[in-house]
Amino acid sequence: MTNNTDKPVTVIGLGLMGQALAGAFLKAGHPTTVWNRTTSKADQLVAGGARLAPTVGDALKAGFLTIICVTDYQAMYELLGASDIELDGTMLINLTSGSSAHAREAAHWAERHGAHYLDGAIMAIPPAIGTAEAVILHSGPQQDFEAHKSTLGALGTVTYLGADPGLASLYDVAGLAMMWSILNAWLQGTALLRTAGVDAATYAPFAQQIAAVVAEWLPGYAEQIDSGSFPAEVSALETDARAMAHLIEESEAVGVNAELPKLIKAMADRSIAAGHGGEQYPVLIEEFAKPRTD
Amino acid sequence: MTNNTDKPVTVIGLGLMGQALAGAFLKAGHPTTVWNRTTSKADQLVAGGARLAPTVGDALKAGFLTIICVTDYQAMYELLGASDIELDGTMLINLTSGSSAHAREAAHWAERHGAHYLDGAIMAIPPAIGTAEAVILHSGPQQDFEAHKSTLGALGTVTYLGADPGLASLYDVAGLAMMWSILNAWLQGTALLRTAGVDAATYAPFAQQIAAVVAEWLPGYAEQIDSGSFPAEVSALETDARAMAHLIEESEAVGVNAELPKLIKAMADRSIAAGHGGEQYPVLIEEFAKPRTD
Ligand SMILES: NC(=O)c1ccc[n+]([C@@H]2O[C@H](COP(=O)([O-])OP(=O)(O)OC[C@H]3O[C@@H](n4cnc5c(N)ncnc54)[C@H](OP(=O)(O)O)[C@@H]3O)[C@@H](O)[C@H]2O)c1
Ligand SMILES: NC(=O)c1ccc[n+]([C@@H]2O[C@H](COP(=O)([O-])OP(=O)(O)OC[C@H]3O[C@@H](n4cnc5c(N)ncnc54)[C@H](OP(=O)(O)O)[C@@H]3O)[C@@H](O)[C@H]2O)c1
Repeated sequence: MTNNTDKPVTVIGLGLMGQALAGAFLKAGHPTTVWNRTTSKADQLVAGGARLAPTVGDALKAGFLTIICVTDYQAMYELLGASDIELDGTMLINLTSGSSAHAREAAHWAERHGAHYLDGAIMAIPPAIGTAEAVILHSGPQQDFEAHKSTLGALGTVTYLGADPGLASLYDVAGLAMMWSILNAWLQGTALLRTAGVDAATYAPFAQQIAAVVAEWLPGYAEQIDSGSFPAEVSALETDARAMAHLIEESEAVGVNAELPKLIKAMADRSIAAGHGGEQYPVLIEEFAKPRTD
Repeated sequence: MTNNTDKPVTVIGLGLMGQALAGAFLKAGHPTTVWNRTTSKADQLVAGGARLAPTVGDALKAGFLTIICVTDYQAMYELLGASDIELDGTMLINLTSGSSAHAREAAHWAERHGAHYLDGAIMAIPPAIGTAEAVILHSGPQQDFEAHKSTLGALGTVTYLGADPGLASLYDVAGLAMMWSILNAWLQGTALLRTAGVDAATYAPFAQQIAAVVAEWLPGYAEQIDSGSFPAEVSALETDARAMAHLIEESEAVGVNAELPKLIKAMADRSIAAGHGGEQYPVLIEEFAKPRTD
């Protein structure tokens, strides 16, 4: 996946994820320096050819780029903010999970210390790292991403989202919301169907097919949002709301959980109460875009 | 789509959907008899070659099969339950929306009157009727479906789900839950990204891709449900719950709605409280399968 495997890299933080990241760099042939608070977590990597740096400062100097992947941003500041650490001129790629605000703060902090900084989010589990399945999102200065893109390619499918360092975190949680929502909708359907003796394996392909069809609508619906106009070309929100009532009634009648159906309907009802019953589903963006007020 | 277009059919109920159904039969070449309480709604169909029956009883006799598509099951009983109506030997296909309990009751009622009965659910809007895009679900005696499958094919993509007449309604609402959940998750993500100036069209392909990937997991996850065993092969529910907290925090920090994120986490938290934190996501079926109790 990379064409510059002679470039030295550093990985700071060797938890489950950091070990996987360092392992993928090693496997791709990069001279890899590692550091972890608990040094024993470096043992396997060192056996595989990694160099264990004695200090964070030494680790930072060894790499052409430094990946940091620790529990949270607080841990990153504790590690990199020590008075004896020289950040000037380093290239930091922070794959620690956090919010968009954390990422933007960290970018300012790094800039003040003369470091190049990209913020990333890993949409994968450790065993997937190093394969195309591992999607890793990046945001920050485009030239920094482009300069290190092929090196980062050793970790998985790397994606650049834009200059705002908060974007990686935002896309990450947005993608997770999609993941859990599909799983929950599928569980809701599975629970409904099991009351009629249909097993989960029988229902799953149906759910899969619906998901595929609906996913295809998104770009078209997005145009409605961007234009701020929601003509009921396919169906009106109040028609949806009637069918939502069926979903709630059915869930309650067969004795399965009705919280998800009720939330679906509550949001539609609020939009209808705000006068949007004759418009199309994406008009609900107005409800999603603000905190609940009533 | 049909190879027996000489077979006479009847459509009772000419609302938006009934008109589309009768129109599709006419277009496919079927001699089509129609009836509606408000007779003027038959005008266009009659101009297109349909025969308007003077009474419901007459309409029922004219067709090799009769589709009924009215507002609700109550309206169906009012129409077909009149004392002068002879149902014995008729083939009723009820495409009226209702619950699985309504469908099962109606099947018993039809059986008592000597009628063959299939219950159906239309997963489409009227303009799609007559095209492959219109998915129409059927449940009831398999031989009745097989006998009329090719005729029903004039209406769209017809699917048979099983002998329990309640299945069409259950799959219908389950599919709708999937549809709204994907749309809502996409709206949540769109709302989050818009706070960083990303427009809906830019975010949509990302959401689409996540949806496609997650949908592919469903058959594998279904095996866990059917076996009742949820080893954390990919990740443990408590790891998901930590990321759910990030989703809530991010939503609140940027000022978008956090109700969907909170429901996602509340259901996971209940499962973790019940001792399933070390198991995999589909273990949540136990929460979805029962009404909220706490
Ligand atoms: N694992 C996943 O599936 C996954 C997926 C996507 C994203 N992530 C993200 O990746 C990051 C790391 O996750 P992980 O799974 O590797 O976690 P982990 O196994 O718990 O490892 C945490 C790492 O952070 C270090 N650390 C924590 N606090 C520290 C401090 N104050 N000073 C120095 N080091 C500190 C730990 O050092 P010690 O070894 O000395 O404790 C360890 O290296 C997290 O932000 C996580 O959200 C993980
Ligand atoms: N439209 C859609 O997008 C759609 C999609 C999927 C499923 N469906 C389902 O299809 C069914 C019909 O929907 P629609 O859109 O055609 O509704 P609609 O336009 O409101 O038409 C309702 C039909 O029911 C008849 N009706 C209602 N009460 C009656 C009664 N007591 N006696 C006799 N006839 C009565 C009406 O007769 P009059 O003309 O005399 O009032 C009319 O023919 C509903 O169950 C709906 O949920 C609709």
